[in-house]
Amino acid sequence: MGVVPQPTNGRAAICNTHWPCGAMLGPGPGGAHYKMCEAGGCVQVLCPGASGIKSAAKAGTAEADEMQPVRKDKKNAPYRGLLERLAAGEIIIGDGGFVFALEKRGYVKAGPWTPEATVEHPEAVRQLHREFLRAGSTVMQTFTFYASDDKLMNRGNYVGQKISGNTVNEAACDIAREVANEGDALVAGGVSQTPSYLSNKSETAVKAIFRKQLDVFVKKNVDFLIAEYFEHVEEAEWAVHVMKESGKAVAATMCIGPEGDMAGVSTGDCAVRLVKAGADIVGVNCHFDPDISLKAMKLMKEGLEAAKLKAHLMVQPLAFHTPDCSKQGFIDLPEFPFALEPRIATRWDMHKYARSAYDLGIRYIGGCCGFEPYHIRAIAEELATERGFLPAGSEKHDAWGSCLAMHTKPWVRARAQRAYWEKMLPATGLPYSPAFSKPDSWGVTKGDEALIQQVEATSNDQLKDMFEKQKKLAGIIA
Amino acid sequence: MGVVPQPTNGRAAICNTHWPCGAMLGPGPGGAHYKMCEAGGCVQVLCPGASGIKSAAKAGTAEADEMQPVRKDKKNAPYRGLLERLAAGEIIIGDGGFVFALEKRGYVKAGPWTPEATVEHPEAVRQLHREFLRAGSTVMQTFTFYASDDKLMNRGNYVGQKISGNTVNEAACDIAREVANEGDALVAGGVSQTPSYLSNKSETAVKAIFRKQLDVFVKKNVDFLIAEYFEHVEEAEWAVHVMKESGKAVAATMCIGPEGDMAGVSTGDCAVRLVKAGADIVGVNCHFDPDISLKAMKLMKEGLEAAKLKAHLMVQPLAFHTPDCSKQGFIDLPEFPFALEPRIATRWDMHKYARSAYDLGIRYIGGCCGFEPYHIRAIAEELATERGFLPAGSEKHDAWGSCLAMHTKPWVRARAQRAYWEKMLPATGLPYSPAFSKPDSWGVTKGDEALIQQVEATSNDQLKDMFEKQKKLAGIIA
Amino acid sequence: MGVVPQPTNGRAAICNTHWPCGAMLGPGPGGAHYKMCEAGGCVQVLCPGASGIKSAAKAGTAEADEMQPVRKDKKNAPYRGLLERLAAGEIIIGDGGFVFALEKRGYVKAGPWTPEATVEHPEAVRQLHREFLRAGSTVMQTFTFYASDDKLMNRGNYVGQKISGNTVNEAACDIAREVANEGDALVAGGVSQTPSYLSNKSETAVKAIFRKQLDVFVKKNVDFLIAEYFEHVEEAEWAVHVMKESGKAVAATMCIGPEGDMAGVSTGDCAVRLVKAGADIVGVNCHFDPDISLKAMKLMKEGLEAAKLKAHLMVQPLAFHTPDCSKQGFIDLPEFPFALEPRIATRWDMHKYARSAYDLGIRYIGGCCGFEPYHIRAIAEELATERGFLPAGSEKHDAWGSCLAMHTKPWVRARAQRAYWEKMLPATGLPYSPAFSKPDSWGVTKGDEALIQQVEATSNDQLKDMFEKQKKLAGIIA
Amino acid sequence: MGVVPQPTNGRAAICNTHWPCGAMLGPGPGGAHYKMCEAGGCVQVLCPGASGIKSAAKAGTAEADEMQPVRKDKKNAPYRGLLERLAAGEIIIGDGGFVFALEKRGYVKAGPWTPEATVEHPEAVRQLHREFLRAGSTVMQTFTFYASDDKLMNRGNYVGQKISGNTVNEAACDIAREVANEGDALVAGGVSQTPSYLSNKSETAVKAIFRKQLDVFVKKNVDFLIAEYFEHVEEAEWAVHVMKESGKAVAATMCIGPEGDMAGVSTGDCAVRLVKAGADIVGVNCHFDPDISLKAMKLMKEGLEAAKLKAHLMVQPLAFHTPDCSKQGFIDLPEFPFALEPRIATRWDMHKYARSAYDLGIRYIGGCCGFEPYHIRAIAEELATERGFLPAGSEKHDAWGSCLAMHTKPWVRARAQRAYWEKMLPATGLPYSPAFSKPDSWGVTKGDEALIQQVEATSNDQLKDMFEKQKKLAGIIA
Repeated sequence: MGVVPQPTNGRAAICNTHWPCGAMLGPGPGGAHYKMCEAGGCVQVLCPGASGIKSAAKAGTAEADEMQPVRKDKKNAPYRGLLERLAAGEIIIGDGGFVFALEKRGYVKAGPWTPEATVEHPEAVRQLHREFLRAGSTVMQTFTFYASDDKLMNRGNYVGQKISGNTVNEAACDIAREVANEGDALVAGGVSQTPSYLSNKSETAVKAIFRKQLDVFVKKNVDFLIAEYFEHVEEAEWAVHVMKESGKAVAATMCIGPEGDMAGVSTGDCAVRLVKAGADIVGVNCHFDPDISLKAMKLMKEGLEAAKLKAHLMVQPLAFHTPDCSKQGFIDLPEFPFALEPRIATRWDMHKYARSAYDLGIRYIGGCCGFEPYHIRAIAEELATERGFLPAGSEKHDAWGSCLAMHTKPWVRARAQRAYWEKMLPATGLPYSPAFSKPDSWGVTKGDEALIQQVEATSNDQLKDMFEKQKKLAGIIA
Repeated sequence: MGVVPQPTNGRAAICNTHWPCGAMLGPGPGGAHYKMCEAGGCVQVLCPGASGIKSAAKAGTAEADEMQPVRKDKKNAPYRGLLERLAAGEIIIGDGGFVFALEKRGYVKAGPWTPEATVEHPEAVRQLHREFLRAGSTVMQTFTFYASDDKLMNRGNYVGQKISGNTVNEAACDIAREVANEGDALVAGGVSQTPSYLSNKSETAVKAIFRKQLDVFVKKNVDFLIAEYFEHVEEAEWAVHVMKESGKAVAATMCIGPEGDMAGVSTGDCAVRLVKAGADIVGVNCHFDPDISLKAMKLMKEGLEAAKLKAHLMVQPLAFHTPDCSKQGFIDLPEFPFALEPRIATRWDMHKYARSAYDLGIRYIGGCCGFEPYHIRAIAEELATERGFLPAGSEKHDAWGSCLAMHTKPWVRARAQRAYWEKMLPATGLPYSPAFSKPDSWGVTKGDEALIQQVEATSNDQLKDMFEKQKKLAGIIA
Repeated sequence: MGVVPQPTNGRAAICNTHWPCGAMLGPGPGGAHYKMCEAGGCVQVLCPGASGIKSAAKAGTAEADEMQPVRKDKKNAPYRGLLERLAAGEIIIGDGGFVFALEKRGYVKAGPWTPEATVEHPEAVRQLHREFLRAGSTVMQTFTFYASDDKLMNRGNYVGQKISGNTVNEAACDIAREVANEGDALVAGGVSQTPSYLSNKSETAVKAIFRKQLDVFVKKNVDFLIAEYFEHVEEAEWAVHVMKESGKAVAATMCIGPEGDMAGVSTGDCAVRLVKAGADIVGVNCHFDPDISLKAMKLMKEGLEAAKLKAHLMVQPLAFHTPDCSKQGFIDLPEFPFALEPRIATRWDMHKYARSAYDLGIRYIGGCCGFEPYHIRAIAEELATERGFLPAGSEKHDAWGSCLAMHTKPWVRARAQRAYWEKMLPATGLPYSPAFSKPDSWGVTKGDEALIQQVEATSNDQLKDMFEKQKKLAGIIA
Repeated sequence: MGVVPQPTNGRAAICNTHWPCGAMLGPGPGGAHYKMCEAGGCVQVLCPGASGIKSAAKAGTAEADEMQPVRKDKKNAPYRGLLERLAAGEIIIGDGGFVFALEKRGYVKAGPWTPEATVEHPEAVRQLHREFLRAGSTVMQTFTFYASDDKLMNRGNYVGQKISGNTVNEAACDIAREVANEGDALVAGGVSQTPSYLSNKSETAVKAIFRKQLDVFVKKNVDFLIAEYFEHVEEAEWAVHVMKESGKAVAATMCIGPEGDMAGVSTGDCAVRLVKAGADIVGVNCHFDPDISLKAMKLMKEGLEAAKLKAHLMVQPLAFHTPDCSKQGFIDLPEFPFALEPRIATRWDMHKYARSAYDLGIRYIGGCCGFEPYHIRAIAEELATERGFLPAGSEKHDAWGSCLAMHTKPWVRARAQRAYWEKMLPATGLPYSPAFSKPDSWGVTKGDEALIQQVEATSNDQLKDMFEKQKKLAGIIA
């Protein structure tokens, strides 16, 4: 134990006692000066200058504060935009998906997935933003997913009759800005794919929809823009074109995997086309789990390299395991959207994801559907050494479960170690459930009758037809 | 379709068209008058008085409001206490577990599981209360779990040095009352098992701890009291004795399954002893999944019947599947507490649970760790016919997934039916994970050295010993 | 390595070098003098008297023969009966189930499960006997399962019209004796439960059926008798009564688990009643996996002890994992009998089974349906130290997979160790299959209309009724 | 029921009553004239000429014999060679893998996998041949796998010192011919990959090894030749070159999947090169399950078409599910070779396999490791309509489980239907086992030190090195 660890005052420390550990040192039991590191057989690292393990009683009080490893906020920091931060090599941590998180909390309806909660229940949207900020997110993405006028009036969802798209988008910007200002976060205005495109509407018509949202983002002066959740690169290009009119930095992500977009464009080509359309940052979001999404990112990276193009990379995958997905992603899985629970990733899965994304050169790392604040926190904790600080939320989460050293039961205290959780292959307790599911594969895409926008609710005859089709295809459910 | 359904104006309706369906009719696609019922082959029920299916456009506007099936609040209703409501045959719906939900949101530390968030982040606690209220909870349980002074200073958790138990308990009462008043909910003050008891402290010492929390509950005038999460019936009896001093109604639940308490008292005898100690309501909470918890409830009910005792029944299980648990419940599972995700119950599991609990004669039905607002909402939706109304949160959740009729993809619209979700056996997408886990079985209970309260953090030598023990017992992890 | 291992010449040896290993030493790579022992970190034990590891070339030739660890036969050993052997503390190893093994080979029809192959294809029956003898079986059980006259004419199986029960039973005795004489094995004549009993026939009628088979066994002078596969202890008692008329030793096993017989008699009481009826050896066979069967054996043992009765114990379980069985055993599992493959036990499961059975005091250890010769060999190998020799079949199977040291691929050679196989939790490669199945639970037993013997084939109307019942009960299959 | 089914006298019949059923009609309950067909809602087909359902008693006797649906043998048929049969559009059914089947029976040692049983235990080899013949095999493949001289002296397997390669090969030919003559089967002499090739021996040296085996095949006048189980197409080409010297028809199969051979040659190119080398029939065998093997076959077929080459297609996959395999096939799976049980395919899996293979245009359909006689029988039953007869073994196996109509328990009788078994997704009963395993991936191939032939047994130092490597790579096993 002759090696002196790096100073830990006020910031996270690296374990350099045990080569080749290099692990980030979270606070030890009691939040005291000494830190635990389970990697490489190492058990603890002494606080520099300390003559030994400090008495826990002492450490728990005044002195523990002086060694705060987390960064609660940076309100008064000078403004630095997204591209500035990325150019400086900083890691941008995104947030998680709002529609799934708020559906579970009771504020979003599955099916339409529209974000009128910004108007109806702003306190709920605000609280979720705060939790992500606290977890380490450096971007507050406006909750404007599916907030286009055409989507707000579709298939029997008549939100648009009560609340205009403008009202929803403005409220979303205000809430995001309010919370962003509580920390050092940026606000990103987001647009996503439209029913109009799927209904074969013209480029002009689709672009007009994007432009209407953009007008709000410009008025509210968001920090940058995200065009996300596109299944067809053509529509994503259109969105980028419109977004670029604002002069703001534009990130563009598609909800595709390694098999490319719905129209058959390869994943690598999608990246190339998005950058050529003007995107500063490209990547994928939603539809696939972290593993598959990173495979897609690898293809995007290689595509850009082959085309000698430069762009920042960004990834915001699902927090659901989807190894059995087809090209259409988790929408196809029979469990979507109301029985995905057994697929939810653990925080330890997120450690692996964050490390792999970082190693691939991605510097904008976030999440989409299924991500809860603790998943984002895991990303921030995995990359705390690289970033130089832990998120505020880590004051309630010691590294790699070491907080369990405070549990009542001794066998749970025995789990206060990285080795335990890193190797965890969790059981499901689901005796009659299968390991994998057979994805639906209806094979419909843009222009198919069943995808065409329809203001009226699906009629009973339409439903009957679909129930029949499902029975035939699935067989099992019958 | 000659049979006329019951009026649906302003309240939920029962499908009486198709005997023996009796299903609660949620709002149909578009929130229109007509309702869908998938049971018994029935596809829809017409709105009474309507000459056919109303045009969806019309239904979506003014008229949809006139037929509001949900009850948003009942602020001005005359006060009715817990026992009064139960005596009238009403169903009381509890809330979900706060420590797990807030741990994921970043406000509670796993390990100590103490509730200082009531002081540190009241907005987060308030928001969770609101979500449960909206989901249908009729009880706001004060977030005072493990808020006893001895627990706030234990094993390196020094919360008690910064924030007194009194402060935590008072803040919890204030927040719960504030949200309860936004609806028609009652406030319940809660106490739970103490490290002092596990450390063999005297009855006098343990009771003094409970009394200190009770003083706050009396001062804040909560509506009734809950003694919950007891592993030993003796300690639960002591808690009930103390609680009864207040003259308030007392509910007592133990965290046990069908195998009885840690000291070997049978589940039926536990119920008998709690009622004899003065509890008005008895049951189980935490540690086991709904299935196993209901098995325990059946034993409690039979025990009370055999002893010719009367009491209301209450159940608040986990939202994690735990068929592989030992007597110690989910604490023993290797996945506890950071890799339980694949065990999370779906909303459909909760429908089954609510119905089974109701059929067993239980009228206080809630949840514990793992329950999120949407799980509570599923209870309220399953029992909406019996209660006569849907919870406010159902404005964002049509019955049995029928809201999916508004989804973009046709194969997801095809899932807008009860038959689909009721039979769902969800896959896990976890290829290398086992179906079941082997619970730890350290076999330590009250008085065992490893359970004795200890203010100081677990020392590294203590941890080493436990890591060793774990290796030997678990084998696999090594 | 100072400790001298026991001599290995001509017999198996115990590893006493590494306390507390005590492992049986199988032949090392090349069948040479030196032995491998992977337990306790030990890698090898030198041959006593050798100055080191013998050159493999040398060991492979003449000297390897001199150290033959297997006992190929003992043709000229003096006759010793079953009870004599058991009294001397010897371990009797049974054989595996013939109906399942021969169904897979093409000689037995699933459904009726009758043994006319003894007449139609004696060479196939003989070969299976030989394989079990070679694997270590010390009993050749006549293939007379369901060879009673009533069973040979039942539900459309008209075997009895072509071949009489007498002919089948006689042929079975002749084949068993022929093979038994090739080694040191005993011949056991077996009877099993009758359709007559299930059809409420009288004690006299049922006993007459047993007596008819017994006449053949006496004529052919089998060494002892087995009454096996009884679901009702009453019928088993009747069988024992009849068998005892012969003066031969009688073993009686029921196809029950820890829940007792179909009529509700506890497992312990079943054992007591069988011993009181005259059985010299009692136990269970078929219907459950080794784990569950041993739990039943424990209850039998305790029942006998409580009743102060003495008897030898015997167990012949399934080679299928059945943790999800109901009282009716594997017959209830949806996979029975044509999709049980994923449940088949490995040889390593059999090592555990053999050791556990031995530790419980059972000295007649065999198998039933699903057991193939290699499963029996695993029993013989696990108990080789206790028995003092390995079976002939071990000349093709070095202990604990050490023969893999001869495999082409290096990573397979790396599996040539006990530690690897002992911890193996095999995967299934079945993505859409569930972990557990829901057993059928039709709840019919003796006297129920659906169980009554019927010479005619099940009519189509009868089948339709049953298909309907199945649909209702199973739901899933629909 | 106005449509008249085809005559069933003496041969199998097709159900043409219910379009588009077309199912092969197996014997009905009782072996009677009437047949069951569960597909398409159809329950039975009457015997033509009968005025209704025959009384079962009558049907069970004389008349049942007159309608024998199986073809027991065709001893006196005029000789027709393989290519002649294929040219006539006949389906050739192969046999199953001998090394795995005989390992379980106690006659082959896993690791070396050499076939000296032909000399040591000819009765066991003969019996297995007979079972495959009875199951429907039209080829008796000589048990000469790994019977090359270099393989018989390798890594501590000193078989070659006791029994020469010539002796083994001659005995294998004699046994195969003896059994082939009991039916209408052909004898195929087989060679497989050599340790010499993996050890970088010259083309001349490797060809000399093949030629030595060929000499025996020519002397014994086998009907045709199979070069099988090659991981490198180069070695397979050498084998084909040598085999062609005999003038006999040559089939060549590689143990590869869709990823191509170990040296990186694509699967399609492998087929092309084998045909160019002179093979009359090409395909894959071993290493992968039916699904994956058929994917490889599709690539071979497409490769040949692209190259405008013609050849017959042949497939002999594993009977183990291997969806989680890497390029190296099942050798990589941690369960290989002693814990593959949960992966064993059911007979119903084989129905699907046979149909898919047939539909792909493959006319030589057989099996490899894991195939037991009942698996081959399932192929013969699935294709019975196309072939015009059922195999002899079907006299003990009515189609699609209809023999279960004779079972004692009514819920098992309810399984006597195609719909039940066709949809079966069998459970495993393995609570602590994972769904999928992580294949070993050592990445060694031809020329790697660890693959070089070595006559001496693997030394303990070599083993230790490999155990270490395994620990590092597998992690989990530790």
